[in-house]
Amino acid sequence: MREIVVFSGSAHHKLAERICEGLGVPLSPVDIKRFSNDCLQAQLMANCRQRDVYLIQPLVPPTQEHLMELLMMIDAARGASAAQITAVIPHFSYARSDKKDASRISLGGRLVADMLSAAGVHRVLTMALHAPQVHGFFSVPVDHLTAIGELADEFRGQDLSDTIVISPDLGNAKTATQFARLLGLPVAAGSKQRLADDTVVIDSIVGDVQGKKAIILDDEIATGGSIVELLDRLKDLGCTEAQVATTHGLFVGKAVERLRGHPMIREVITTDTVPAPTGWPELKTRSVSALFAQAIARIHAGESVSSLFDGVDPTYAPPQPKLPFH
Amino acid sequence: MREIVVFSGSAHHKLAERICEGLGVPLSPVDIKRFSNDCLQAQLMANCRQRDVYLIQPLVPPTQEHLMELLMMIDAARGASAAQITAVIPHFSYARSDKKDASRISLGGRLVADMLSAAGVHRVLTMALHAPQVHGFFSVPVDHLTAIGELADEFRGQDLSDTIVISPDLGNAKTATQFARLLGLPVAAGSKQRLADDTVVIDSIVGDVQGKKAIILDDEIATGGSIVELLDRLKDLGCTEAQVATTHGLFVGKAVERLRGHPMIREVITTDTVPAPTGWPELKTRSVSALFAQAIARIHAGESVSSLFDGVDPTYAPPQPKLPFH
Amino acid sequence: MREIVVFSGSAHHKLAERICEGLGVPLSPVDIKRFSNDCLQAQLMANCRQRDVYLIQPLVPPTQEHLMELLMMIDAARGASAAQITAVIPHFSYARSDKKDASRISLGGRLVADMLSAAGVHRVLTMALHAPQVHGFFSVPVDHLTAIGELADEFRGQDLSDTIVISPDLGNAKTATQFARLLGLPVAAGSKQRLADDTVVIDSIVGDVQGKKAIILDDEIATGGSIVELLDRLKDLGCTEAQVATTHGLFVGKAVERLRGHPMIREVITTDTVPAPTGWPELKTRSVSALFAQAIARIHAGESVSSLFDGVDPTYAPPQPKLPFH
Amino acid sequence: MREIVVFSGSAHHKLAERICEGLGVPLSPVDIKRFSNDCLQAQLMANCRQRDVYLIQPLVPPTQEHLMELLMMIDAARGASAAQITAVIPHFSYARSDKKDASRISLGGRLVADMLSAAGVHRVLTMALHAPQVHGFFSVPVDHLTAIGELADEFRGQDLSDTIVISPDLGNAKTATQFARLLGLPVAAGSKQRLADDTVVIDSIVGDVQGKKAIILDDEIATGGSIVELLDRLKDLGCTEAQVATTHGLFVGKAVERLRGHPMIREVITTDTVPAPTGWPELKTRSVSALFAQAIARIHAGESVSSLFDGVDPTYAPPQPKLPFH
Amino acid sequence: MREIVVFSGSAHHKLAERICEGLGVPLSPVDIKRFSNDCLQAQLMANCRQRDVYLIQPLVPPTQEHLMELLMMIDAARGASAAQITAVIPHFSYARSDKKDASRISLGGRLVADMLSAAGVHRVLTMALHAPQVHGFFSVPVDHLTAIGELADEFRGQDLSDTIVISPDLGNAKTATQFARLLGLPVAAGSKQRLADDTVVIDSIVGDVQGKKAIILDDEIATGGSIVELLDRLKDLGCTEAQVATTHGLFVGKAVERLRGHPMIREVITTDTVPAPTGWPELKTRSVSALFAQAIARIHAGESVSSLFDGVDPTYAPPQPKLPFH
Amino acid sequence: MREIVVFSGSAHHKLAERICEGLGVPLSPVDIKRFSNDCLQAQLMANCRQRDVYLIQPLVPPTQEHLMELLMMIDAARGASAAQITAVIPHFSYARSDKKDASRISLGGRLVADMLSAAGVHRVLTMALHAPQVHGFFSVPVDHLTAIGELADEFRGQDLSDTIVISPDLGNAKTATQFARLLGLPVAAGSKQRLADDTVVIDSIVGDVQGKKAIILDDEIATGGSIVELLDRLKDLGCTEAQVATTHGLFVGKAVERLRGHPMIREVITTDTVPAPTGWPELKTRSVSALFAQAIARIHAGESVSSLFDGVDPTYAPPQPKLPFH
Repeated sequence: MREIVVFSGSAHHKLAERICEGLGVPLSPVDIKRFSNDCLQAQLMANCRQRDVYLIQPLVPPTQEHLMELLMMIDAARGASAAQITAVIPHFSYARSDKKDASRISLGGRLVADMLSAAGVHRVLTMALHAPQVHGFFSVPVDHLTAIGELADEFRGQDLSDTIVISPDLGNAKTATQFARLLGLPVAAGSKQRLADDTVVIDSIVGDVQGKKAIILDDEIATGGSIVELLDRLKDLGCTEAQVATTHGLFVGKAVERLRGHPMIREVITTDTVPAPTGWPELKTRSVSALFAQAIARIHAGESVSSLFDGVDPTYAPPQPKLPFH
Repeated sequence: MREIVVFSGSAHHKLAERICEGLGVPLSPVDIKRFSNDCLQAQLMANCRQRDVYLIQPLVPPTQEHLMELLMMIDAARGASAAQITAVIPHFSYARSDKKDASRISLGGRLVADMLSAAGVHRVLTMALHAPQVHGFFSVPVDHLTAIGELADEFRGQDLSDTIVISPDLGNAKTATQFARLLGLPVAAGSKQRLADDTVVIDSIVGDVQGKKAIILDDEIATGGSIVELLDRLKDLGCTEAQVATTHGLFVGKAVERLRGHPMIREVITTDTVPAPTGWPELKTRSVSALFAQAIARIHAGESVSSLFDGVDPTYAPPQPKLPFH
Repeated sequence: MREIVVFSGSAHHKLAERICEGLGVPLSPVDIKRFSNDCLQAQLMANCRQRDVYLIQPLVPPTQEHLMELLMMIDAARGASAAQITAVIPHFSYARSDKKDASRISLGGRLVADMLSAAGVHRVLTMALHAPQVHGFFSVPVDHLTAIGELADEFRGQDLSDTIVISPDLGNAKTATQFARLLGLPVAAGSKQRLADDTVVIDSIVGDVQGKKAIILDDEIATGGSIVELLDRLKDLGCTEAQVATTHGLFVGKAVERLRGHPMIREVITTDTVPAPTGWPELKTRSVSALFAQAIARIHAGESVSSLFDGVDPTYAPPQPKLPFH
Repeated sequence: MREIVVFSGSAHHKLAERICEGLGVPLSPVDIKRFSNDCLQAQLMANCRQRDVYLIQPLVPPTQEHLMELLMMIDAARGASAAQITAVIPHFSYARSDKKDASRISLGGRLVADMLSAAGVHRVLTMALHAPQVHGFFSVPVDHLTAIGELADEFRGQDLSDTIVISPDLGNAKTATQFARLLGLPVAAGSKQRLADDTVVIDSIVGDVQGKKAIILDDEIATGGSIVELLDRLKDLGCTEAQVATTHGLFVGKAVERLRGHPMIREVITTDTVPAPTGWPELKTRSVSALFAQAIARIHAGESVSSLFDGVDPTYAPPQPKLPFH
Repeated sequence: MREIVVFSGSAHHKLAERICEGLGVPLSPVDIKRFSNDCLQAQLMANCRQRDVYLIQPLVPPTQEHLMELLMMIDAARGASAAQITAVIPHFSYARSDKKDASRISLGGRLVADMLSAAGVHRVLTMALHAPQVHGFFSVPVDHLTAIGELADEFRGQDLSDTIVISPDLGNAKTATQFARLLGLPVAAGSKQRLADDTVVIDSIVGDVQGKKAIILDDEIATGGSIVELLDRLKDLGCTEAQVATTHGLFVGKAVERLRGHPMIREVITTDTVPAPTGWPELKTRSVSALFAQAIARIHAGESVSSLFDGVDPTYAPPQPKLPFH
Repeated sequence: MREIVVFSGSAHHKLAERICEGLGVPLSPVDIKRFSNDCLQAQLMANCRQRDVYLIQPLVPPTQEHLMELLMMIDAARGASAAQITAVIPHFSYARSDKKDASRISLGGRLVADMLSAAGVHRVLTMALHAPQVHGFFSVPVDHLTAIGELADEFRGQDLSDTIVISPDLGNAKTATQFARLLGLPVAAGSKQRLADDTVVIDSIVGDVQGKKAIILDDEIATGGSIVELLDRLKDLGCTEAQVATTHGLFVGKAVERLRGHPMIREVITTDTVPAPTGWPELKTRSVSALFAQAIARIHAGESVSSLFDGVDPTYAPPQPKLPFH
């Protein structure tokens, strides 16, 4: 079997360390140089020749810098005759640019997928794409993990009576539905309306939330604006207490300020696909590093990654047709 | 300006004729030959050299035959030095295969998009893709039309009091929301649950439908099975009358039988993106041929296609940022 | 060495079983689903990751369905991170569309080859291409087997005095020549003339057949029409008895009816590259499954496939320059 | 309409001049430089920007030099922003490498086609490819002319009683058949046998030639060896007089010596797709420059090239289905 | 002729305005949106269909942001069916990453060139690439302008006795040589030595500078560090007065502070390929907008760009072989 | 580990033998056939399936023939299912065509790099590219060796007092600088001027050479013309004795005559990247076969090639950042 080499860009070194710990493999150093004209250069400081190279980099702010670092690491690995290059992108934030909802706009999700291919990547390992269709933007194989099992674990054992799972957006209610089923709960969803070109409000909730305790589930929380707005709507409808769960907890801008002391929020749970925000000690973070380490180990060993969700707990992931042999 | 040549595969000759009538251009003949070993061959019977070639073919049953015809017409046009080849696919049915919801499955939507590119297409003109993200599966420009303005026209002037728009599926409720706003109506959606590997049922309705008249909107109706199931749920919840509107009215299998005489259905409205079913004279069909003819005329003349939805009626399509000049 | 996984589309499950038996490897299941809008979906039911995947599917009627199945299996294997994907296409029927003999026609052979590449295939294993040049239509390596050794075996030991090998078509007489040499026989060929656009007749026989027993050799027999026509010409010229040998015995349409009881035909010999026709118990079929199994085993083990025809019998295939070492 | 610019490599400047004369367009100069390390460089000495560029170069000896010149002219035209680059290759000699008839050999025809594409060509205009399937080796459109009408003209008005058209090779007898039909003559063909690895002999003639006058038709004559051998066989069979016609009359090595004074040869007719041999004043050469000029004019004007063979004389080319409109 | 549309990213709006003024074409607006997760989106606010689109964006700091903007504008133009997309990159700063001078480093110049291609660009228009070989990194046509004529104009009419042109680096002395010849001056160059991994010093001057007035010419000045170091060496060797000329005057970090008041520097001349630094009113800037406007006009009109340097002044650019006709 | 197979084209069989000796692997035979129409065909006479194939061929005169041979060997290896194909090109002479210094010229370096990719090469192993930027012309990984350590070895132990290293060209002085540092010597360079379109003269020497002994270093010597011219300039400036060192000693045309007996030249040292010239017994040749053998062994074993220059002697190559682990 080929040797494995793991590198991390500068986006989330801690996650890379945790994954490497799980893998029992050292994290090899990368030298990212910034020239005085602001151009970047990446140098991989370990032999890549004929090796399986894994490059860990979530696309978090400053997003363009981190994307360019990733592309350069891929380019360097290709030029160094790596046998196989896997971009491990725990948060592929450009997945949000997944449709042409105005004339002559760029389609960032597809563009970035094409760029990764052009740089020479052979496979992408990611988690919780904003829409499942984004998988189809890639011309290379994608292994797509989910954190909803990990997040659901947080709620097992809690008193979930009178609890309802709420998706802030009708269009993405499917994941909320899966999550709700893991916990045996009903589901509701916010319905958004565009007031002006750049103002979107949640104008109603589809589903009955009166007197319920809410678990709000969103794939990504950035500024927390729509969570706060959703809470206002819930309050109007008689739902006064919420827990908030999200895979990609960016918490940028006023997010910490808005959510940390919000009177309706009992707690916020997230994962470590992105670096933790500062100044929020009570934020609960469940690590997905073990999931990534297992996925990498299985990819490397030629084992099924989809079966990763099979053995442990049947409720962790959407039902999988059983395989007669793996 | 280059000359325009339009061909039609065998999938929907009538629609092609209507579009050509709208364009004021003759429909050029195609000779599709089937060899005794069941292989196909397409011959375009008009000069394509340096011309703008439009090939009209919705991917309706027998779908594989029609897809292959389309690929062969593209190949023939490319080999005949066409300047620009546009596949006009009023119903891109493979858009339904838009995600990997099980291990090791094909992703038909992306595969067919890649195949069209491999055959040599330069642009795709289509309508009502099952999910807007499917746009990003194509590596060539896509002009994506919507029929909801056309369908909404059918309901204008009707008494719409106590009426609610219902999407059979939470995951695709966004188009229903747009449609509902065109008519100033509220929206609800069915929530599906997978019972066994191949049994999916609508187990609840998200939104209050009690005592309402329903307009059920779906992008495609094939066997009508989920419409009937949705009607059962609606009935349970006290909603006893429905109109059904769909862009792609395939009505295969038992669809006509199921829907034509259904006691709860007042009427069914569809468009002519696909050939009409037989034995259903009351079915209301609104033609989208004028929309396609205008789009082709604009593509050919280098005019904006997105502005096609601007001038007529601001409510016909999602709000468009105004352009300072076209 | 990597593990081997073999799948079969629905075109010829029996041949796939025979090949797997020869290989000593189980045939892994595939789930081909047909949606109600007639779109297909393939799911490979065994782990493909880092494995050598072989997908067995001759392109027999319904040809477009089987082609699409094959493309989808390739796509699924690629998305599932297969190390190497080989399409095993015992009958590549689209090879007959190998030239542009009219204006603006599709070139099916090249188009399908390009499509297999676009879907992600790495190698093709096939048998008896209609013309040897079709090899050059593929941008991936092709291992091209021949069945003439297998077919010739049928005639060894028979009394071959006064026997002549006849190719129905001058343009493809080369294979007949090779076959004739394996048996030490002379060769003749039919000369076709096009009467009208779609009427081709054999108007003469090039070579002396008077009083001879004929072995008619064709790469593919579909409806049997040109065999019957050839027999008429042979009869006119004083040749009254024939054996018919073909690699790809499709026998569609009226073929069984025409050939089974034909007074001049003593027997028909074919192989199992395609499924056997029904209602023809006397048809002699020689299996090529062992040839395919050996070829797969050699590909997998990195051994020479061309030498497959060397060891057994020097007359089985065109003379091969001897390799100093393998 | 875009401007047209025509360049010629050093392979056949005279033909380029004749074509330009026919077109009424000047032949623009090219500067081919050879560096002291034997590397070549091409400079196009006329503006190519947004123009239709035609590069004339048959692949004649020294073939590799001429091929590289052509590739460099294509590269230079692409880098100079040509709108469309057509390689005019009157003799595509690599078409003879069209099949893998031994293990691990290069497939020159496809390789050179791929190289032309890689260099940036948009279309190829050629004549009399060795096999019609070679058309399918190109991924760009090919306009494929035939000279058999031009060659047949030479024989019209002659006394053709007791005359037979003979193809030296069974495998390529189709073109001879077409040619024979233009003149209303029967056809015969040589059957080749491989004696040793590199010795091929014509061992028999398929068809009755006794007492006939032969017109031997071959697409290319290089050393004339197989023509001489064919004449020997014809003599054995009682056919003692021949005319020889060929599209690509290379006449290299001992060809002139062998054919010029051969007692059985009445005359040799060729075209100017390649430069004329020296020391053979009686050789009849019919120019194909008008055919090429017309084809270029039609390509440039967006007119059908296939119809080039329609208007003049219905016997010039294989029957074409009539087009309802061009 | 197709219409022309010009857009500018946010890197250098003023230059874009000057170019558009020169062209007599309005600058069309672009809407660059930054999402709260720091992802970008570009929307082109004018119709691009069938138009010649020019996107102006030098790659200046913040370089990654500006690069991503450019890629997104290209992607949007392609998706909007632009006929031809030209990236106008007055300063292609990634050209400095042009060689692999350490193991496993990225090759930024080639990577960015590939990315522009992957996004869909058809042509690049740029100025003063760090090394002329970088031209070869692009797979699309590049029009490469020079500013040395413009810079040399500044010195014409000055007293240039005892003046020498100095290149800070031996490796790039060729452009200094061209520049020197425009002014009839001798040339010298600094020789750099690497002390430690990241410390490079100019350790000597190749050429005699004693008592001379220097014109230091560099393609790009970023922090000005090596200019100051060069001045120290010049002082040691008895050269005490210098003018500094550069095409790309970034002047980042301490550059203004270092160079503005340097006792040896009489004046600094630059162009406007990049935005002007703040706080340096005496900096002389010569605009290259007219050169770019003329180049775009010629590209659009299909005229020769290389001849742009011919008519005005024969000394502006390297000698061009005269074209017999354009 | 996969097996290794090495083939040699006809350019430099001796070097291939030396490399194979160093590797302990037999040199497998290739059959290069030239058809009578001057087309080439390559047949690899050893099994390539799943093997690491190395094809050794410097691009020396006749350059086009050798290039075509190499492309055909790559094509044959690809078609024969080689696992990995490395073109070993000890002298990549087309690297000299590395920039567009005139309008509408071909860019040979990039074109040939693209052609190697189009033929199917996976990696290139080369030595002493004319400019380091040419590395970026390749879209496949390049391992780029240097011979300056080998050449410098020749001078160690000699009396190097009053010695200076001289580059004939300012533009390529960097390698001379590296070489000079290996020996602790100063460096000077010639400055070339273009007199007419095709006349370039060395008009001055940048650096002080008075009374020095020169070591002239050039990457390639073809006719020796510019060496002789440089010697004339050196003599004018009081430098009367020179040693000449070059990596690629082609010595074509009058080179041997010019250099062998030149009164100022003490000796000429070269390597065996290209075949030795005839008639020059005193020419010193240092073999680089061991360097190539080691590089191939490391590539095959997945070891770092860059570290090849680390262990032996720190002065052999530009300083390398130390790797923490290989």
